[in-house]
Amino acid sequence: MLQPPKVRSVRIAGLGVFLPELRVLSSDLDQKFGVAPGMTARATGVAERRYVQDETTEQMGAKAARRALADARIDAGDVDVVIAAATSPRQLIPCTAVFMQRELNLPEGRSRCFDVDATCLSWLVAVDIAANYIAAGQAKTVLVITSETASCSLNVSEPESAGLFGDAAVAAVLTPSGGSDSQLGHVLFETHSSGAEMAQFRGAGTRHHPNDPATAPEMNMFQMHGRSIFRMASRIGPPFMDRFMRDAGASHADFDAVVPHQASRLGLEAISSMFGFPRERIISNLATRGNCIAASIPLALAEGVSSGQIGRGNRVLLMGTGAGLTLGAMDLVF
Amino acid sequence: MLQPPKVRSVRIAGLGVFLPELRVLSSDLDQKFGVAPGMTARATGVAERRYVQDETTEQMGAKAARRALADARIDAGDVDVVIAAATSPRQLIPCTAVFMQRELNLPEGRSRCFDVDATCLSWLVAVDIAANYIAAGQAKTVLVITSETASCSLNVSEPESAGLFGDAAVAAVLTPSGGSDSQLGHVLFETHSSGAEMAQFRGAGTRHHPNDPATAPEMNMFQMHGRSIFRMASRIGPPFMDRFMRDAGASHADFDAVVPHQASRLGLEAISSMFGFPRERIISNLATRGNCIAASIPLALAEGVSSGQIGRGNRVLLMGTGAGLTLGAMDLVF
Repeated sequence: MLQPPKVRSVRIAGLGVFLPELRVLSSDLDQKFGVAPGMTARATGVAERRYVQDETTEQMGAKAARRALADARIDAGDVDVVIAAATSPRQLIPCTAVFMQRELNLPEGRSRCFDVDATCLSWLVAVDIAANYIAAGQAKTVLVITSETASCSLNVSEPESAGLFGDAAVAAVLTPSGGSDSQLGHVLFETHSSGAEMAQFRGAGTRHHPNDPATAPEMNMFQMHGRSIFRMASRIGPPFMDRFMRDAGASHADFDAVVPHQASRLGLEAISSMFGFPRERIISNLATRGNCIAASIPLALAEGVSSGQIGRGNRVLLMGTGAGLTLGAMDLVF
Repeated sequence: MLQPPKVRSVRIAGLGVFLPELRVLSSDLDQKFGVAPGMTARATGVAERRYVQDETTEQMGAKAARRALADARIDAGDVDVVIAAATSPRQLIPCTAVFMQRELNLPEGRSRCFDVDATCLSWLVAVDIAANYIAAGQAKTVLVITSETASCSLNVSEPESAGLFGDAAVAAVLTPSGGSDSQLGHVLFETHSSGAEMAQFRGAGTRHHPNDPATAPEMNMFQMHGRSIFRMASRIGPPFMDRFMRDAGASHADFDAVVPHQASRLGLEAISSMFGFPRERIISNLATRGNCIAASIPLALAEGVSSGQIGRGNRVLLMGTGAGLTLGAMDLVF
């Protein structure tokens, strides 16, 4: 079994957010989808979300990263590692992190760049990897950038998923904790691949190559069986959380805040009803941001910090599901 | 600056290779490309390479992984982490590692699955990440699977790159060193993003979405400016290697074998002419395998072990370039 890791003296020294300007209301989408007024908001729990217009993946990411570096008061020239952690790559080759280095004007050769993908949990997995780089002494400053553009891949004939997603970019700067209380405790991920087809983008790979005449347009759009995911997560989620709490040596009451992936209305309601966390400690921005894929967790964290719901020294539980189906949880002292 | 890491007590406990059956000779490609007989072999240094027929990305990867687990004498049920480290994903969502878990019939929920992409250096970056998981006590058995299918993305109007690539899958099982001498020493990666356009697959992302009518077929094919890469690597490679050797506390003569990325004929020749490593210590399989993208380095390592050129306890330098342009080097006691 995976061992509970030693606590790592790592700090999220800065967070930065970029939201595209264009607000899209659920009432606008009702018309677009050809459904009854109010249905998109009711089905998804999302009142509005942002869509990109001209912003590119790397422009969004770089804007978030500049804000994160300013928040951390760290010079861009000090970045050792750039991890692009998202499911919306700029292109297949090279990896997106390379374009982030260039867009940010980081000095040539100073940083190593690579991408990490665990769909909606990409940011959490990348933070875990970044913390190990810092704990191992291989890096002092790691930039994790999650820039997600969902809006170009929505299938209007599936309003329940097409109405759910929004675009956003979030970046985090990780450093050693220094004299602060910040630390990264237990981290657990478990993949249950019998759920692999519950949330998919079937194209853009070897199976349905973009140039294959048999590749249909809907293969290059999101496809989601929300109810199946919810049923599976309801079954495997509670024992997963029990294992996590046991190995973290923690109980629900130890966490000052819970930052869940903004998967869906049902999924968020389950954080209190199924897992028993008090509602007032759960950070939710689904109504105004939608599900921003891998950007959802760091966006909710950043907005929780901005609103004062999360402060320095608070113990925060980051948790969520990702396509796969993968469950993830992280014990962070912010 | 990145710090030289402490040595990590990590061992490549097993390696496994899967090569598709279909051999494609350079003389066959001369005809296909409409070039003079012998030109493909002369331009690329590749006499033959393998192309997939019906094998899927996950079938290739799982076959390599079963061989790696058998080589390591480790039960599939003991795998803690599955990292798919390649540039040929099965599809965009979920990540390829999920499909590897399923194809290998690994127990549900036992392992965490994610993808790592640093183009041709993906396997090296993933091994570095895996070593940190093991060193941090978060995992005992990590499976790094690199399954590359280049053949579906070749542009016959660019024979120099279309003739260069081949398909292959390679897997490695990483564990703690136990009582053995195996260890992972210094690892260095440097990205120089002014070279981002020198090797590209422009599509399959947000920039040229597969469903965008403006996305042309050639955007979903490899495009490579081999001479530009070679010129840039010739300029930045030697000082990179000097820094690596200084921080590794090593000199050229300390390495029993050099396993380079099989980038190109010119690139391989430079390992001896430019970097000064003796020819007989350099593992090369370019002539029979082609450039298998991220599978090239582990394939050359595995074939070096099979042929007896590399043995347990040997100090091996793994090195290469990846699209980005990224330089990478790893000091491994096998």
